[in-house]
Amino acid sequence: MAIKLMAVTDDAYEAADLIRILMEIHPYVDHVQIREKRKPAGKVYQLCKELLDEGLPAHKLWLNDRMDIALLLGLKQVHIPGHGLPLEELKKLYPDLRIGAPVHSFEEAVQAESVGAAYALYGHCFPTASKKGKSPQPLANLRYIRQNTHIPLYAIGGIEVERLASLKAFELEGVAVMSSIFSAANPLDAVKKLREECLRLEEIH
Amino acid sequence: MAIKLMAVTDDAYEAADLIRILMEIHPYVDHVQIREKRKPAGKVYQLCKELLDEGLPAHKLWLNDRMDIALLLGLKQVHIPGHGLPLEELKKLYPDLRIGAPVHSFEEAVQAESVGAAYALYGHCFPTASKKGKSPQPLANLRYIRQNTHIPLYAIGGIEVERLASLKAFELEGVAVMSSIFSAANPLDAVKKLREECLRLEEIH
Repeated sequence: MAIKLMAVTDDAYEAADLIRILMEIHPYVDHVQIREKRKPAGKVYQLCKELLDEGLPAHKLWLNDRMDIALLLGLKQVHIPGHGLPLEELKKLYPDLRIGAPVHSFEEAVQAESVGAAYALYGHCFPTASKKGKSPQPLANLRYIRQNTHIPLYAIGGIEVERLASLKAFELEGVAVMSSIFSAANPLDAVKKLREECLRLEEIH
Repeated sequence: MAIKLMAVTDDAYEAADLIRILMEIHPYVDHVQIREKRKPAGKVYQLCKELLDEGLPAHKLWLNDRMDIALLLGLKQVHIPGHGLPLEELKKLYPDLRIGAPVHSFEEAVQAESVGAAYALYGHCFPTASKKGKSPQPLANLRYIRQNTHIPLYAIGGIEVERLASLKAFELEGVAVMSSIFSAANPLDAVKKLREECLRLEEIH
């Protein structure tokens, strides 16, 4: 199975532009994570509602942080960032909810697995503009996590087409991509190239 | 009945200090609104959980904006700020939820009443440090809203002990206070003085 693609929005676009981009690219990605931290809740709700109304499949849409918006929209998944809502309490109240969780270590990956998270997002893996001046997390950890847990693993941080091949050995479920898509001159072209590389790597054994 | 007091936190304290202050002052106020916008959701959850564990009555605790935290804590009320979650959708999903809503005009007050909001918070009423450079809303509107709606009305913005008497004519349900409490050298003294003035005004006919 090809490595999955999650597009993570970067809070740099007005709602109308972001909707246009997401409606173009969503057929080429498996997940869209809405991470619009500076927009107030009402705007994020409206943005997501329009995406769903225009046909973005509900199962692809992951709200970052705002479980309440996900509930209002009837979504069955949410991405909880670090310092976000407590995963165990969320799972108690919403046992069927699929929760994505960031991890930075083996311990955090074990914890995410033990609370039943749908995936662990490990990063950042490579230098990237959105984490300027911060050292990437060691890829050796990623290997250790893969070998010692069963939770689906996504890599994030500086994911570019040229780097995908180097991640193949980690048996990832997928990669999450922000800058390479949303800072690209043409997000649709960027997504298509990422998707092509994912499919090409699938065929290499 | 004496005018009610809502203490609105100002996001200026570390959690431990804020908990200490709130545990001191809550017996003298009717509501506590947690408005800690720069703290991540997990910290706000933890802060509120500790307040409840230490004995702050759940019915006094209004989360600002974060319906999801309110749900995790089992709270039955929430304050939705401007540009927050859509009130009608919230009421559809949670018919018994008590929702507080800010209003700046008669039209907004009518809308808040029509969706079944528990109160309308009108302001800001007086010049205040947290709204520097912005003109206060006309008090004439407050009178018009009071005379032409039935929604419980709270005034906010620059509420000080000396100004409470001037608000008596508006037949408010209460006042919401941020700076006069949380910027005071001694928040407990400040709350007691506000409470005393509310009680004194009640006796004047």
